[in-house]
Amino acid sequence: MNVLNNHTGFYTDYYQLTMAQGYFLAGRASDSSCFDYFFRENPFDGGYVVFAGLTDVLDLIKDFSYGDDMIEYLRGLGFKEEFTKYLRNFRFQGTITSVREGEIVFPLEPLFRVEGTLLESQILETLILNILNFESLIATKASRVVAAAGGRRVVDFGLRRAQGFGGVHATKAAIIGGVDATSNVYAAFHNGFEASGTQAHSWVQSYDDELTAFRKYAEIYPDRCVLLVDTYNTLRSGVPNAITVAKELEKDGHRLMAVRLDSGDLAYLSKHARAMLDQAGLHYVRITVSNQLDEYVIRSLLEDQHAPIDVFGVGTRLVTGQPSAALDGVYKLSMCGGTPRLKFSENYTKLTLPGIKSIHRFINGEGLFSADGVTLADEAAPDYIVHPFFPEQKSTLKHCASEVLMQKVMENGEIISRSTAQESAAYAKERLMHLASEHRRFEFPHIYRVGISQKLLSLRAQLVENFQQHS
Amino acid sequence: MNVLNNHTGFYTDYYQLTMAQGYFLAGRASDSSCFDYFFRENPFDGGYVVFAGLTDVLDLIKDFSYGDDMIEYLRGLGFKEEFTKYLRNFRFQGTITSVREGEIVFPLEPLFRVEGTLLESQILETLILNILNFESLIATKASRVVAAAGGRRVVDFGLRRAQGFGGVHATKAAIIGGVDATSNVYAAFHNGFEASGTQAHSWVQSYDDELTAFRKYAEIYPDRCVLLVDTYNTLRSGVPNAITVAKELEKDGHRLMAVRLDSGDLAYLSKHARAMLDQAGLHYVRITVSNQLDEYVIRSLLEDQHAPIDVFGVGTRLVTGQPSAALDGVYKLSMCGGTPRLKFSENYTKLTLPGIKSIHRFINGEGLFSADGVTLADEAAPDYIVHPFFPEQKSTLKHCASEVLMQKVMENGEIISRSTAQESAAYAKERLMHLASEHRRFEFPHIYRVGISQKLLSLRAQLVENFQQHS
Repeated sequence: MNVLNNHTGFYTDYYQLTMAQGYFLAGRASDSSCFDYFFRENPFDGGYVVFAGLTDVLDLIKDFSYGDDMIEYLRGLGFKEEFTKYLRNFRFQGTITSVREGEIVFPLEPLFRVEGTLLESQILETLILNILNFESLIATKASRVVAAAGGRRVVDFGLRRAQGFGGVHATKAAIIGGVDATSNVYAAFHNGFEASGTQAHSWVQSYDDELTAFRKYAEIYPDRCVLLVDTYNTLRSGVPNAITVAKELEKDGHRLMAVRLDSGDLAYLSKHARAMLDQAGLHYVRITVSNQLDEYVIRSLLEDQHAPIDVFGVGTRLVTGQPSAALDGVYKLSMCGGTPRLKFSENYTKLTLPGIKSIHRFINGEGLFSADGVTLADEAAPDYIVHPFFPEQKSTLKHCASEVLMQKVMENGEIISRSTAQESAAYAKERLMHLASEHRRFEFPHIYRVGISQKLLSLRAQLVENFQQHS
Repeated sequence: MNVLNNHTGFYTDYYQLTMAQGYFLAGRASDSSCFDYFFRENPFDGGYVVFAGLTDVLDLIKDFSYGDDMIEYLRGLGFKEEFTKYLRNFRFQGTITSVREGEIVFPLEPLFRVEGTLLESQILETLILNILNFESLIATKASRVVAAAGGRRVVDFGLRRAQGFGGVHATKAAIIGGVDATSNVYAAFHNGFEASGTQAHSWVQSYDDELTAFRKYAEIYPDRCVLLVDTYNTLRSGVPNAITVAKELEKDGHRLMAVRLDSGDLAYLSKHARAMLDQAGLHYVRITVSNQLDEYVIRSLLEDQHAPIDVFGVGTRLVTGQPSAALDGVYKLSMCGGTPRLKFSENYTKLTLPGIKSIHRFINGEGLFSADGVTLADEAAPDYIVHPFFPEQKSTLKHCASEVLMQKVMENGEIISRSTAQESAAYAKERLMHLASEHRRFEFPHIYRVGISQKLLSLRAQLVENFQQHS
């Protein structure tokens, strides 16, 4: 799904183009390189991230090219003719290795690796960061909201507060994170998601009275009627009128599906609405709520206040990933011209991991994820891992089963593996069951162990030493 | 600029379609209606909003239609054939009246008014909210960042942390809010903005040593060379190497444009870098900084720490509108079938303003904005306004000049007035000069007076009374 028409090659930072021309003119366009995508901190003070955006990134990379109008623009900006001729024929021809979409991942892991020429790998940076950062943020938020809802239905209502066309990705990522359906018709149409929604306050306001508005809606949608009951007064007018309409529907053999509350105290109102519905024998009518929900509000409604709510419509805080708003993922050079590279930093925790790497996941006897080890790509699963910044901390993993998390997804510029959002959602759901609850809790989650192999540690130490000797 | 290809009619919430079919089948599709867009709270605990998104919304409304593939999809979902035939020929034919893009606006003002049939006005809701909410949020954030920078150059670096394709709007809105240039090539290409950027850490890392990397870059871009000096050690390596290259450039008659700092303590490093550059006689080399900047960090760097910084690159917190993340704009029915409508609420401050309305701005003797009055559209500028929720609070405005803020921008579905982002930016800049500094300050800004006319107050009171008698 690409909405950028034929201008995907411009969905990038300007410096990618100045650097690309630099590499080209310096005769280095074809130097081999390897870049890693990784993030440094879990969003939401949480314990994990649901990796998302892979399929969209691969599709966009396939489309990443420069048409005549773009070439003309670049010439106008002073780019050299020989370089723009090169760009005119540009297609990414490299290889991408990645964890699966929907995988449960952690800080510092090289999740997505691009191997290709220096020029072609660099020029994709912005696009990769733009999509992976945002979709992973929202899939993670969605998985928290879904966890709080404890098996109840969750619907994405966020399009009106999404970041413009960011709504295209927000819904897809929300589905990957576990949301059941969406109000976003564009996303539903393009991805086969369930579209959901019934009426706004304006429907009710557009009639002279609420009961007529409800009756008209029920007449047109007798079998999928959800009535919004808070336009005037929820308990004195909305719920009683909904009960009247439900009884009328029953006479014709239909059943009112639900009432929706969109304002006021949702715990108080849902309890009273439930009691009124039950008293009228309408036990089957469900209660849907919306209005500024997130995982914390949902948890409070259900666990602290035992609100009898069946469906949650979640909008703004889901699609904007509040309060984190952005995942801090970066894209760093780890090899160039066959040599491992390091981004040095006086802040030791910002040192990058050099070389071509792999991720091994260790699984304990109960089937739970126990630790992840980042190794060089040619290593087998190590017997122990060391803490990436405090190497004296070692963890022995001899008795754990292990699996390799990364697989090739693009080869010579061709996509060789991709998943639908529904497949990624199913994968994420299954994987989350193997993550111990202490890593999933909202407050001060237990930090999941991610270590590096002795061999990777030695390579990094050697590069740091080389650097310090030369400076 | 529309990146949704031919599927704009689906960039909407599902309930817009179920309601549209409801109105159609109830024979009400052609009932006349009026909807208002307004927001209830300024974002960022600030004192104003820069209205943005108008041009994009108008362009999208022009494209809002349903092709054969979309019709087929809707039939598969159970929509009736007669309704989908209607949709196949749908084009918005109504009239839109709006404040100008770039206008300085305040809570509760009906900024954007759609008059048309009930069906055509309702079905646009999600799109209008999606674009106006986001672009106004970001334009407002940008204006705050630009104010903090006090005339220094500000460049948008946010694409990599934008919400997927939301980057298309984020940059445009940032420019409307006053940002000078952008790293986002797509936005620059489509809108004629200045594209800006030079090199990443990977450029430096890709060479065996920093000095060679700098020399190569300077060779290719001798007249617009900005060197990123923090890849290894800013003051021991980066700045000294930049000075070496600057001296070499001087020999060939060129001048190093700037050095860029992207990590560490920007105040400390910029002061030392400035001193080193000055000592080398390189007074003309500018200092650019980036890394987690926002209006507060910039103000602290400049005002508290007197950091000698010339250019600010602002990314994540600009394009995500942190910490607000969303503007709470809504779209409410104010007239239907010729009758004024009200959204009642037990929370008095959520009562909507009924009828077709206008906004008058009052200007005091010093040329500053003094107050805004919302009136019915056929009223002249009133002599006094009343507080919308505490009507006993009256403000006399007899001695103020006044102007009407809204103008017709679309008529019978045709755009009759639109601005480029650059024009909107110039307008916003000019208008902000008429807003007293007490409304612009970041902490506890003075609340700008927005009142309503006596006539509008009476209309609302009458509708509330009618409602209460019938419930």
